[in-house]
Amino acid sequence: MAKKSLPLSKVYRLLEPGPVVMVTTAHEGRTNIMTMSWHTMIDFEPPIVGCVVSERNHTFGMLKATGECVINIPTADLARHAVACGNTSGRKVDKFRVFGLTPAAASRVKAPLIDECYANLECKVVDTRMTGRYNLFILEVLKAWIDPLRKDPKTIHHLGKGAFMVAGETIRLPSKMK
Amino acid sequence: MAKKSLPLSKVYRLLEPGPVVMVTTAHEGRTNIMTMSWHTMIDFEPPIVGCVVSERNHTFGMLKATGECVINIPTADLARHAVACGNTSGRKVDKFRVFGLTPAAASRVKAPLIDECYANLECKVVDTRMTGRYNLFILEVLKAWIDPLRKDPKTIHHLGKGAFMVAGETIRLPSKMK
Repeated sequence: MAKKSLPLSKVYRLLEPGPVVMVTTAHEGRTNIMTMSWHTMIDFEPPIVGCVVSERNHTFGMLKATGECVINIPTADLARHAVACGNTSGRKVDKFRVFGLTPAAASRVKAPLIDECYANLECKVVDTRMTGRYNLFILEVLKAWIDPLRKDPKTIHHLGKGAFMVAGETIRLPSKMK
Repeated sequence: MAKKSLPLSKVYRLLEPGPVVMVTTAHEGRTNIMTMSWHTMIDFEPPIVGCVVSERNHTFGMLKATGECVINIPTADLARHAVACGNTSGRKVDKFRVFGLTPAAASRVKAPLIDECYANLECKVVDTRMTGRYNLFILEVLKAWIDPLRKDPKTIHHLGKGAFMVAGETIRLPSKMK
């Protein structure tokens, strides 16, 4: 998928609507993909993101060891892939291979982009002080990519127990908010 | 609006899709409403929520002073109210009165519920250690309310600069995730 660089000042517009994301990591020649919904923007620019990764997930150790990841944002056509990645552990499975996803090289981190996702955020861990108490990692987005052809991405939003809301129509209101 | 109590174990299903929320506070006889998108679930039960409130917002001081708030979740019919609350400061305006919203008494906190919102989460601040560095408040949800008649709430999700995605269709997939 031919992507263009997205200005870091616009990254919040991708994450604050609350999409399901797929977090990729790489360590010692192996990669992993974790499906996640517990994330929030923390600052605009540089974009700072908080995300919660359970210590039971393989990605927790990968993040601790490498301090890097990519946040990949799937659309509804990838919902089955997102669920499949959530249903399996990277300790046992090479998820890129088994689920037919395409790893692409990132520019600033060793973790791979998921090529099929319409947007990808290359991140480094900048603060682990809340990792012990809350499993909360603070990430800085170093580089962002977006598919310029996808104007109205149908992101998916987890409602619990396998139910996902798919992004509907967009409305516009005269807001002073960023 | 006649609401029923929602089990705390189900609160994550309301917040993890990433809806715009309206945070209410009360202090020294005055109330306030702040529109917010920067929040994440941190733990399931008791439900722990992280939210980012700029120190420039009137609600920052209200939260610091009282340690309490209500997270109210609006639907698309309230989008104009949510934007109006985001465009004004509670330092100058009584937002309940000016925007015609109805305060209802909460059961565990002094901050009011917004009656028109389909769900309301009564919260106390349980950790302010990240408030200085990240404006990040850690909240515990003490009590949750939901309108039992609203089966498919059309939540709104901020895309930046006054654009909001309205919740679309729901799909179901065989997920092992909670």
